[in-house]
Amino acid sequence: MGRLFARYELESPVGLERAAEVIAGEQSSGTFIRLPGESDALRAQSRARIEDIVPQSSSGTPSLPCRLSGESYARGEVVLSWPIENMGASLTNTLATVAGNLFELAEVSALRLLDVDFPEEFAIAYPGPAFGVTGTRRLAGVAERPLIGTIIKPSVGLSPEETAALAKQLAEGGIDFIKDDELQGNGPHCPLDQRVEKVMRALNDHAEHSGRKVMYAFNITDEIDQMKRNADMVRDAGGTCLMVSLFAIGLAGLTAIRRHAELPLHCHRNGWGLYSRSPDIGIGFRAWQKFWRLAGADHLHVNGIANKFTEGDAQVIDSARSLGEALQPETACAAMPVFSSGQTAVQMQPTFSALGSGDFIYCAGGGIMGHPGGVAGGVASLKEAWEAALAGISLQDYAKDHPALADALRTFGARVA
Amino acid sequence: MGRLFARYELESPVGLERAAEVIAGEQSSGTFIRLPGESDALRAQSRARIEDIVPQSSSGTPSLPCRLSGESYARGEVVLSWPIENMGASLTNTLATVAGNLFELAEVSALRLLDVDFPEEFAIAYPGPAFGVTGTRRLAGVAERPLIGTIIKPSVGLSPEETAALAKQLAEGGIDFIKDDELQGNGPHCPLDQRVEKVMRALNDHAEHSGRKVMYAFNITDEIDQMKRNADMVRDAGGTCLMVSLFAIGLAGLTAIRRHAELPLHCHRNGWGLYSRSPDIGIGFRAWQKFWRLAGADHLHVNGIANKFTEGDAQVIDSARSLGEALQPETACAAMPVFSSGQTAVQMQPTFSALGSGDFIYCAGGGIMGHPGGVAGGVASLKEAWEAALAGISLQDYAKDHPALADALRTFGARVA
Repeated sequence: MGRLFARYELESPVGLERAAEVIAGEQSSGTFIRLPGESDALRAQSRARIEDIVPQSSSGTPSLPCRLSGESYARGEVVLSWPIENMGASLTNTLATVAGNLFELAEVSALRLLDVDFPEEFAIAYPGPAFGVTGTRRLAGVAERPLIGTIIKPSVGLSPEETAALAKQLAEGGIDFIKDDELQGNGPHCPLDQRVEKVMRALNDHAEHSGRKVMYAFNITDEIDQMKRNADMVRDAGGTCLMVSLFAIGLAGLTAIRRHAELPLHCHRNGWGLYSRSPDIGIGFRAWQKFWRLAGADHLHVNGIANKFTEGDAQVIDSARSLGEALQPETACAAMPVFSSGQTAVQMQPTFSALGSGDFIYCAGGGIMGHPGGVAGGVASLKEAWEAALAGISLQDYAKDHPALADALRTFGARVA
Repeated sequence: MGRLFARYELESPVGLERAAEVIAGEQSSGTFIRLPGESDALRAQSRARIEDIVPQSSSGTPSLPCRLSGESYARGEVVLSWPIENMGASLTNTLATVAGNLFELAEVSALRLLDVDFPEEFAIAYPGPAFGVTGTRRLAGVAERPLIGTIIKPSVGLSPEETAALAKQLAEGGIDFIKDDELQGNGPHCPLDQRVEKVMRALNDHAEHSGRKVMYAFNITDEIDQMKRNADMVRDAGGTCLMVSLFAIGLAGLTAIRRHAELPLHCHRNGWGLYSRSPDIGIGFRAWQKFWRLAGADHLHVNGIANKFTEGDAQVIDSARSLGEALQPETACAAMPVFSSGQTAVQMQPTFSALGSGDFIYCAGGGIMGHPGGVAGGVASLKEAWEAALAGISLQDYAKDHPALADALRTFGARVA
């Protein structure tokens, strides 16, 4: 059987080597003394192994409050490995191993899980995305360019009828993809069943005369059994996508809905800031996304270039790229990146240029609905921005005979440096 | 319908008032411009409300990396409220509201969710703990004192037979409660079905002649359907407790197992350091535990006094107390605190004294198995420490004619100041 590898950035008051040993012990055989039942053979068989230690810097003060203190706090990267006999090919039990109690250890004054390498047993045990890029393109009827998407806004407050009217307007404006806001689930002002019925009536009608069905990601986040019923309801109404909030449903929840549902899973990472915001505690996207891809995520949010949040562009692009990298030589398990958060026509070219591919969903909220030409103008400006990017023409030049793009540059240009 | 309240500690480059407005907007109606569909009436109906702002301090540098910069960074507490029409009485969708995208906002350079007040609709919609203190005491056959517990160690590596032999030894030593380590799920060296069969055979045998069944929390953490089968298997074998890793199964997972299982849910918070370790990002235990109690947690881990991790004693005791505080005037929804992590006889008295109650589970790993008198000595030392605490006698005095306690003080006394 294979081994599981995890790479950490850590800082320690007791030195990197000692900290790595404590983590390896705590997260495998672990307690503070050698126990009667713990023979040398058993230790050798089960104990986590230190694979690599790369010192990087040192500081006189700890980055996080820490029960232990040291003369200095060494910082660097550490790679550990475990025999998967310890936890089996189980994502939930792997999480306890690589991202469990270790974050609380007094031997670390900073700890981030940067990456995980799953042995092939996991790719066999878990289904991975059922649709990915190819399945999403087929259902959305978009062959090559990025899917132009938007979020229903206001986030909450619209009735099912108002939501359907907006979806109809967006469809007529040429949108490819619409998602519920993550704040809109199944509240009393906009119950999911009525929203599905009315939105899908509008989108099915539109598909009948346009020949293409807009993909709408309904936020089905709920208890497990209700999510399954929600998924069936969306399918029965002719819907083509399901959205879930990952932190709320957990790995076990995503796997359950993946094994039940027959539609792509649009995975929202609201709460991500909690894992990513601090340089001293958390989980890096490279590690985090692999759990969700194995569990079945088809689409994963990655913010966007010059987003309204705080993630920098390099991280955004690294996140997006990581989703396309094969988990195993034989297992692509690729998910489709979703760019979102303050996106407008202005960021399309740098996004394409940095990613080197058009296989993504590009969601603009205000960037579409706040366009002076209305929804149709907003959608057109994004498609024109894509055409310019693909042709290698600057937005300013392309805008000369593309008025929707010109409007977008005037309206949103100042928002991006 | 009621309103949902959330209290935050935040730091901002744009002032507390402006930051609170941005959060209120982003987490309710939210995007960066007012949209055509967003009437004043709709905003008034759905928008989150700023209830209170309490400035506390100011700094010249941001605590976390932040896209926006300011002349100074104001820090303080902010209380926001939402109409529950926005999200319904849904824990999963509430999480997206109070602990979602806001952690990524450029208007905050630090953000911690400190507390949440759920309106009574949530207590109606969710089951809460099925057993709590009373049900746990009944199943464990322990009427008044704390449950003396331990964790199977080594964490991984023992076979089902070896685990059962250790459980038998612990039962004969007088233990009340045993739990699997969170690292031990269903790995190939110790499959859960064989572990349940062999451990319960030992504990059922012991119960037949002792008249009291040791409570064993089997780690059933897995995919949802498998967790349900695991729960049935434990029940059918005569087991009396189920353990789950909360971060792995998620809120939806816990609710699903709560609605299915017929045994107490022992809830492990491995990964908690990620939420608690930084003073600048995360979720406080007071807020966090309410979600899990509503979803059905019977037992929740809170570390322990002078633990081997980094949480301080004041936080440990505040966490333990919070589990007993009623969620609503009519809804106790109390969970039982589990003290764990480097616990020995030495910490029993300060734990009782700070908590003011014996309604807790006290888990010692090395504190039992590393006792010079073996398992029986370790368990006896913890019971004697409890007797001393209850009688108000110092450990040193009580140890004079209680040799197991005396051994514990000699062995573990130096570990605690």
